[in-house]
Amino acid sequence: METTRLLRDLRACVGEAHVITGDEIAAYTTDPRNVTGPTPLVVVRPRTTDEVAAVVQACAATGAAIVTQGGHTGMSGGAQATADSAPVVVTLRRMTTIEAVDPTDATATVEAGVTIEAIQQAADDVDLLFAPDWGARGTATIGGGISTNAGGNNVLHYGSMRDHVLGLEVVLADGRIWNGLRALHKDSSGYRLRDLFIGAEGTLGIVTRAVVKLLPRLHDQRSAFVALADLDACTALLSRVRGTGAVVSGFELIPERGVAGVVARFGRQRPLEGKGEASRAEWYVLLRLATPRGTDAGELMGDVLEGAFAAGLITDAAVAVTPEHDENLWAIRDEISPSLLIPDAKDGAKYDTAVPVRRVVEFIRRASETVERIGGGEGWTPYAFGHVGDGNIHFYGLAPAEGHATSQSASRTATRAAIEEAVDALVIELGGTLSAEHGVGQTLLDRIGAQKPDIEIELAWRLKQAFDPDGLMNPGKTLPPLEPGA
Amino acid sequence: METTRLLRDLRACVGEAHVITGDEIAAYTTDPRNVTGPTPLVVVRPRTTDEVAAVVQACAATGAAIVTQGGHTGMSGGAQATADSAPVVVTLRRMTTIEAVDPTDATATVEAGVTIEAIQQAADDVDLLFAPDWGARGTATIGGGISTNAGGNNVLHYGSMRDHVLGLEVVLADGRIWNGLRALHKDSSGYRLRDLFIGAEGTLGIVTRAVVKLLPRLHDQRSAFVALADLDACTALLSRVRGTGAVVSGFELIPERGVAGVVARFGRQRPLEGKGEASRAEWYVLLRLATPRGTDAGELMGDVLEGAFAAGLITDAAVAVTPEHDENLWAIRDEISPSLLIPDAKDGAKYDTAVPVRRVVEFIRRASETVERIGGGEGWTPYAFGHVGDGNIHFYGLAPAEGHATSQSASRTATRAAIEEAVDALVIELGGTLSAEHGVGQTLLDRIGAQKPDIEIELAWRLKQAFDPDGLMNPGKTLPPLEPGA
Repeated sequence: METTRLLRDLRACVGEAHVITGDEIAAYTTDPRNVTGPTPLVVVRPRTTDEVAAVVQACAATGAAIVTQGGHTGMSGGAQATADSAPVVVTLRRMTTIEAVDPTDATATVEAGVTIEAIQQAADDVDLLFAPDWGARGTATIGGGISTNAGGNNVLHYGSMRDHVLGLEVVLADGRIWNGLRALHKDSSGYRLRDLFIGAEGTLGIVTRAVVKLLPRLHDQRSAFVALADLDACTALLSRVRGTGAVVSGFELIPERGVAGVVARFGRQRPLEGKGEASRAEWYVLLRLATPRGTDAGELMGDVLEGAFAAGLITDAAVAVTPEHDENLWAIRDEISPSLLIPDAKDGAKYDTAVPVRRVVEFIRRASETVERIGGGEGWTPYAFGHVGDGNIHFYGLAPAEGHATSQSASRTATRAAIEEAVDALVIELGGTLSAEHGVGQTLLDRIGAQKPDIEIELAWRLKQAFDPDGLMNPGKTLPPLEPGA
Repeated sequence: METTRLLRDLRACVGEAHVITGDEIAAYTTDPRNVTGPTPLVVVRPRTTDEVAAVVQACAATGAAIVTQGGHTGMSGGAQATADSAPVVVTLRRMTTIEAVDPTDATATVEAGVTIEAIQQAADDVDLLFAPDWGARGTATIGGGISTNAGGNNVLHYGSMRDHVLGLEVVLADGRIWNGLRALHKDSSGYRLRDLFIGAEGTLGIVTRAVVKLLPRLHDQRSAFVALADLDACTALLSRVRGTGAVVSGFELIPERGVAGVVARFGRQRPLEGKGEASRAEWYVLLRLATPRGTDAGELMGDVLEGAFAAGLITDAAVAVTPEHDENLWAIRDEISPSLLIPDAKDGAKYDTAVPVRRVVEFIRRASETVERIGGGEGWTPYAFGHVGDGNIHFYGLAPAEGHATSQSASRTATRAAIEEAVDALVIELGGTLSAEHGVGQTLLDRIGAQKPDIEIELAWRLKQAFDPDGLMNPGKTLPPLEPGA
């Protein structure tokens, strides 16, 4: 690679000030969670689609690989350089224009670097809703959300990011621009290219602009926190709640260990405090219903819970009656990630898995048994919570705290590997996925292939070849290696 | 092509009885609307995925092209042989097994030849809803609906067929089987292959099985028929109705000419009869709201209409209070297609177009003016109705009745071509699509390219090349020709 020529060309594309080298690069290699990735050759900060296209052409001319970065909040390393290369990082954080919001079309047209929160706010300003939502909303960008097909809290009713994108503009691997910025809610005019780029983590091209859907806002909403009779009751309760025909805007499984943790660590109020034995359970569900204007979500919630109690699915429930009460409940959900609650959680085995909904309970049980069996003697423990309404469980095998007899890192690494091997096999056996909403990136690259038939991996590589024959778009991500001879 | 060898091989694949040649082929070349297509070499009726795979392999070995057929109700000729070839028609109508219905997962697993109505019934049996629905539900198959990304009456709230498919099994062009029959509501594990096959009209492979989504059933529903103050009021009314947060399960624009037609031809009761001048309008909307269990859709409908009346958007309204009244309203909608109402309609220019919702009124106005300008002197008239809630207008330039001075077919053909040229250009100018829900097939093959940038057509052909390098899967459909030199 002719580095001197490349840097000169990149400066010509975006201007001296936006070609970052040397010490300043550090700001782009450490993500908001303080995880630092390998150092790229250079970071480029284009402002427009044309500048992105020029950058891609300059890279193509010298054979330089490109990693595209949005808010850098990804959980799978898709927006970081890989250890064995020094690519050009293209950050789209300067592309922050909301170009149009149309209440009649119920669409917004935005540049890739606009944050999720900014789109939510723009929708709110015209009394509409941009439904995708997750914790990093203030930093995560729409380009990144599209490239990872991000999920979050609202998937059960509204679907993943893919369901909210109507049109895309993409800079292709050869630097040409595909303008597919359509605002059509219905289109059956041939292959739908946009779905190829959604979830492709930048390996087929760079998403530079998007037309996204806005939706009617929800009116009356009501949250409740319920103690489950047992884990099995979880899916039966879900069917019952969905059967009302109301919008189920949340259905989150929460373990007692998580509730105890947020009470102890963050001083949260226990939702079912002081109500005797029925109020303590091994598992809880935090759910939320929304109903149309002029109707009473609280009344419907009361009906549902009464029925669930009579059917023996729940032993106690608290319905939020004040905004403060509601906020306390959802704060619990936001704080139960073990990285916040439990020391050394980062050394554990960590799953963003989805299984068919009827398999959720089985997955949690068997995965927990697996952690106990393999790591229990060394102090490892299972932990699970998440969006069970759409089959998405955040499951952990948590490593013992520092100072435990078996806390040496070599042993930890071996135990974690053994747990991962067994739980991966379980996910696959149950017809699940190792990545429900975080993408493949680098983190899952050597494991994701096992859940797909060889023919699917072969077809994915044919697509890659068709769109990026020189392999310069985010190499070393997303596509698992082809089996030899395939 | 070695015909003898091919026929022998096909008989070996599916058995003598299911390889149709000679006079019996006629049953497969005439569709339910009585439109007859060119005659294929042979019709093959496999029963299983393995048989389909064997058939594809036999065709590949002799270089025979394949046209896949489901219920044969398509509107674009995608399931018919083209005039310049004698391909193997593979009908999947024997693959009619509903393999599984899982209420907890809210999914059904079905073979490609199962009808839309059969899936609706199976969902209903477990108190769930399979949302895709259109007139040909009793004949149209899920495989065909997936291959055309079919739309229908429920798209406004529920989305097109693509939004109801979780997993697919596909026989690829080389006869290998890709099993992507996943039942996951959330998956971000790499390229989503299934979206390539949805809407590809069999040009990338043959869909043999699918996992589809089932949804909670709607509870209280209420329909109303309203007289619009003017056409402009249409989109404002839509925003107002959607703003309630209720499920808007129908929002159909209907012209006075259509109402008059069904009253005269089918003896329907005029919905707003006898209420004076306010009851007659140039345009009407038939809408339907659904609310959750325990709430009153009628009350919400009353509120909405009162507000719309006060805002000057509507001049009169009738809310259906009995099932008979409701049925009468929706029968009107089902009967306003000009092919039922108006003689010679089939000689006219016919559009299944979608435009951005804010452009719907402008499209109807300008397209109508175009028909008047070009064909008005010869007796041509504009006609429009449809799913305006999602921007989908069925627009017609209707030819004059037989006996009209200019009814000679040569003149008709020229006038139709002139109208199509002008209206196509209008659709494209407004950022619309010539095919909202019927697919491209053969009918639109030489016109669809104009609405797409050249680069998009080039990318589509790269996909085709990657999946079907020998071009044997439904050739002459879906993909417009590449411009020379592209």
